[in-house]
Amino acid sequence: MIMTSRPISDSYAETTHLVLPNDTNTLGNLMGGQLLKWLDIACAISAHRHCKRVVVTVAVNHVSFDRPIKLGDFVTIRSHVSRAFSTSMEVWADVWVEDQQTGEKIPCNNAIYTFVAVDNTGRPLKVAEAVPGNELEQKRYDGALRRRQLRLILGGKMKAEEATELKALFE
Amino acid sequence: MIMTSRPISDSYAETTHLVLPNDTNTLGNLMGGQLLKWLDIACAISAHRHCKRVVVTVAVNHVSFDRPIKLGDFVTIRSHVSRAFSTSMEVWADVWVEDQQTGEKIPCNNAIYTFVAVDNTGRPLKVAEAVPGNELEQKRYDGALRRRQLRLILGGKMKAEEATELKALFE
Amino acid sequence: MIMTSRPISDSYAETTHLVLPNDTNTLGNLMGGQLLKWLDIACAISAHRHCKRVVVTVAVNHVSFDRPIKLGDFVTIRSHVSRAFSTSMEVWADVWVEDQQTGEKIPCNNAIYTFVAVDNTGRPLKVAEAVPGNELEQKRYDGALRRRQLRLILGGKMKAEEATELKALFE
Amino acid sequence: MIMTSRPISDSYAETTHLVLPNDTNTLGNLMGGQLLKWLDIACAISAHRHCKRVVVTVAVNHVSFDRPIKLGDFVTIRSHVSRAFSTSMEVWADVWVEDQQTGEKIPCNNAIYTFVAVDNTGRPLKVAEAVPGNELEQKRYDGALRRRQLRLILGGKMKAEEATELKALFE
Amino acid sequence: MIMTSRPISDSYAETTHLVLPNDTNTLGNLMGGQLLKWLDIACAISAHRHCKRVVVTVAVNHVSFDRPIKLGDFVTIRSHVSRAFSTSMEVWADVWVEDQQTGEKIPCNNAIYTFVAVDNTGRPLKVAEAVPGNELEQKRYDGALRRRQLRLILGGKMKAEEATELKALFE
Amino acid sequence: MIMTSRPISDSYAETTHLVLPNDTNTLGNLMGGQLLKWLDIACAISAHRHCKRVVVTVAVNHVSFDRPIKLGDFVTIRSHVSRAFSTSMEVWADVWVEDQQTGEKIPCNNAIYTFVAVDNTGRPLKVAEAVPGNELEQKRYDGALRRRQLRLILGGKMKAEEATELKALFE
Repeated sequence: MIMTSRPISDSYAETTHLVLPNDTNTLGNLMGGQLLKWLDIACAISAHRHCKRVVVTVAVNHVSFDRPIKLGDFVTIRSHVSRAFSTSMEVWADVWVEDQQTGEKIPCNNAIYTFVAVDNTGRPLKVAEAVPGNELEQKRYDGALRRRQLRLILGGKMKAEEATELKALFE
Repeated sequence: MIMTSRPISDSYAETTHLVLPNDTNTLGNLMGGQLLKWLDIACAISAHRHCKRVVVTVAVNHVSFDRPIKLGDFVTIRSHVSRAFSTSMEVWADVWVEDQQTGEKIPCNNAIYTFVAVDNTGRPLKVAEAVPGNELEQKRYDGALRRRQLRLILGGKMKAEEATELKALFE
Repeated sequence: MIMTSRPISDSYAETTHLVLPNDTNTLGNLMGGQLLKWLDIACAISAHRHCKRVVVTVAVNHVSFDRPIKLGDFVTIRSHVSRAFSTSMEVWADVWVEDQQTGEKIPCNNAIYTFVAVDNTGRPLKVAEAVPGNELEQKRYDGALRRRQLRLILGGKMKAEEATELKALFE
Repeated sequence: MIMTSRPISDSYAETTHLVLPNDTNTLGNLMGGQLLKWLDIACAISAHRHCKRVVVTVAVNHVSFDRPIKLGDFVTIRSHVSRAFSTSMEVWADVWVEDQQTGEKIPCNNAIYTFVAVDNTGRPLKVAEAVPGNELEQKRYDGALRRRQLRLILGGKMKAEEATELKALFE
Repeated sequence: MIMTSRPISDSYAETTHLVLPNDTNTLGNLMGGQLLKWLDIACAISAHRHCKRVVVTVAVNHVSFDRPIKLGDFVTIRSHVSRAFSTSMEVWADVWVEDQQTGEKIPCNNAIYTFVAVDNTGRPLKVAEAVPGNELEQKRYDGALRRRQLRLILGGKMKAEEATELKALFE
Repeated sequence: MIMTSRPISDSYAETTHLVLPNDTNTLGNLMGGQLLKWLDIACAISAHRHCKRVVVTVAVNHVSFDRPIKLGDFVTIRSHVSRAFSTSMEVWADVWVEDQQTGEKIPCNNAIYTFVAVDNTGRPLKVAEAVPGNELEQKRYDGALRRRQLRLILGGKMKAEEATELKALFE
C-alpha cells in the first residue's frame, strides 16, 4: 500500500561537512560549486525520505551565497521537502556554519531544488502529498506553487500570462 | 589602465568532461550535483576572463536538467558573461552531450550563475561593461536585468513592487 | 571563561552519506576504509563541539563491520562524546542504513575513537568534563575508563597489572 | 588444490603514499581518517595475498596515532597477515615516515585489522593456516588469539569469562 | 556506412581546468601526474571524435614540462588527432596557461599520446584516415610516421635498422 | 656534507594500488591517465630517495600500455633511479598485476620519467651520481644517455646531428 500523504517532518535530513583544502578557492573559502554538490545530495536524501523511490534532480530554483565559508569550518545542511506536486518535490535546504569558539550556528544561505521520483527506466512516478506541520513549513509550502510557476517559465515550459500565482505577486 | 568595456566574446570558455563512475547515480546517469560543480567552475572561468580578477559565486539563478546524461558520455560546457552590472556578472552556460556514433552535439540544458569580482580581502570590485556582439548575446543581455531583479527578490534584497522590469513580464 | 563541564548532548553530530561507486569494493559493498574515514570526520565534529578546539585523532579503539552496506544506500552516522579525560575525549558513533522501501533505520555497527584537543603547535589542551544526561550516555560513560585502560595497554603505555578497571571484568 | 598452510612471508605488502593537501587537517597534518583508509586497503592486499579470495574488513582491532605526519611527507605502510583463524585473518600494518633530509625511516604507528575471505555472494570461506617464519611474526602470531577474544568481547560475541587467553593477561 | 577519411579539424577538443590545492606539489605547482591525467582524457576525446568508437591509450610518446603552473591558474588543453594509422591514432595536445592580469595565453608544453579504437571485447578496430587541413596539421602529420617508428623501437616491437623514416633524421 | 654518489638500490620504491571504479573506463579497465598519475608519484618518490630534495617532473620519456588492467586488480609499481645527470634523474618504473588465483605477478608495462631536484624557489640543484649495482641496473644506466639525447631532441633542445649516442643506434 502506497501512502497518499506524509508529514514534511518525515523528510528532514541533516549532514555536516568539514571544509577541506580541495573544496576551497584561492581566497581559502568554500567554492560555490562544492556547496552546490553537497546541497544536491542532501536534498536528494530528503526527497527520497518522502517518496521512498529513486529521485533525480530536475532543477535548482535558486541558491544565493551570502557569506564566505572558510577552510576548516563545519558546514551543516538541514533539508526537507517543502511541497510535493504530482511527480515532483520541491526541497528546501538551510545552511549553517558553526562559530569555532562559541559553537553558535550562523545561518549562511538557503537553497531550493526540485526532484522527481522515477522508476528503474527513469520514468516519473506519482508521489505522496507533503503535509506541513508548523508555521515555517506552511509558509514554504504556500510559496512553492509560485516558485513552481517561476521555474516552468524560466525553463520555457509555461507562458508568463498563465502563471496566475506569480502574477499576483506583482499586482 | 582598466578597461571600461569588453566584448562578450572575450569571455567564452569551453570545457569537455568524461562522465566517470563516481559522477553517476544508481541509474548510471550523471548526478545533478556533479554537473552543478562543473558548471560553477566553467562559469567562474568566463567571469574571470571578463574582469581579470578573483571571482566568487554569489548566486545560481536557475538550472534545469532536461535529459539524462549517461556514464561514459562526453559533456561539453560552453559559457560566457551575458551582462555585467556594477560589481557582478551574470554568466550563461550551455551544456551539450555528443552522440557516441554520429558525434552530433545534443543540447542538454543551460544554467545561469552570478559572480562578483573581489580583491584579496573579499571586497567587491568594479567590473567593465560587457558588450554583446551578436543576436543571441543581445537577447541574453536584455533579459539579464529582469533576472537580476528576480534574483534580488528571491534573495530578499528587493521588494516585488520595485522590480519594474519584471513586472512588465506579467502585464 | 572556559567551561569546566558540558552536557554530552552538546556534542551530538549527525551526517548522512550516499554510497557512491568509488566507495565500494568488487562486491558492490561499501569498503571498510571509506566508512572509517567518514567515522573519523564525524567523531572529530563531536569532539570539537565538546571542546571548541582543534582536535586530532589519537586512536581507534574498536570498530566492527557486521552487515554489508550497498552502493546507493544512505548511511547515517550519529556521534557523541562519551567521556572526557584530562586532554582526551572518547567519542562513540552509531551507524544506520535506511531501508529503501520502508525508510526503517537498520543499525549497522558502532565505532569508538579517541581525540585530543590541541593548540596551534599541536600541544594537548585541557578539556571540560562530559556530563551524561540519559541512561545510554551513562552506560557508555561508565565503560570509557575500562576502554581507556585497554587502549593504553594495547598502545604499550600501561602495564596490564595496573589496569584495575579492566581486571575487574575478568574476575 | 587449495593450500592448507602458507608462510606469512607470502602476504607482505608495501605501499608508499605522498601526503597531499586534501589529506590534511587545519594543522597541516595527515588526518587520521585518511590513514585509516590507506591502512584498510594495504591490509586487504595482504589478506588477499594469503587467501587468494575476495576479502572484506570485519574489524579494526586497534590503531593509535603517535606522531603527526606532515603535508608532503612520504608514508610507507608495510603489512602482513599475522594469524589465520577458520575464515578470518588478523593483519598487522606498520607505518613509517621518511626523514626528508636523511631518508631515515621513522616508525609512526601500527594497526591491526581483521578480514574474512568471502565468495561472490558474501559468504565466508575457509582460509589456509598462516605459518610464522621469524621471531617478530611468531610474537604477533602468539598474541593474535588474545586479541581475537578481545575483539569478540568488544563486538558482543563472546562473554568475558570465556576469554581464557585474555584472562591470563591480568592474572 | 563508415567514413574512410575525416578532416583533422573534426577531432579538435578544448578543455580548461582550474588548478586546485590537491593538484599541487609542496612548491604549490601543478603536479606532473595530474596534468598527465588531464591530457589523457583530453586526447581520448579527440581520438573518439575522429573514430566514434571506444578508445584506449596505448602509449605516451613524449611529454615535457617546461614551465611551472601555479595553484589557481586556468590551464587550457587543446588537442587533435595528428595522424591515423590502421587501428591507432596519434593525438597531439597543446597546453596554455592564462596570465591572470592580461588574459594572455602562455604556451606551457605539449604532449603526444597514441590511442587505438576497440570493440566491446577490447579488440582493435580499423579507423578512418585523418586528413590535415592547414600547415601545422600537415607538419605534425608528416612527423607522425617517424614518431611511430620511435615508439615501436622503444616498446621493443621494431628493430632500429628497420626504422627507415627515423634513420633519415640522423643522416 | 652532500653525497657525491649513491647506489641505485637506495632509490627503490614500491607501491600497490587497488583499481577502484573511478579509475576505470567504459570497458571496466584502468584508464591510462590514472596509471600515469600513479607512476608520476611513484617515480617522484624514487627520485627523492636519491637526492633528498624536492623533485619536479620535467618529462615523460615513454610509457606503453600493453595489457588491460581490470577493476579490482592489484597493481604494483616498482621504481628506481636509472641514471643521474647534472641536475636531472631518469627514473624507471615497472608495473605488475597479480593473478587473483595464483598470486603470480604478471608484467604489464614500464615507464620512464625524468625529474629535476629544485630548491624552494624552483631552481635546479646538483644531484649525486647514481651507481648501478647489478646487470639490469647497468643496462638501464647505459641506455639513459641515449634516451636523454632523444628527449632533448623531441623537446627541441638539441639538434639531431649532435646526438652522437643516438646516431650510433642507426648505423
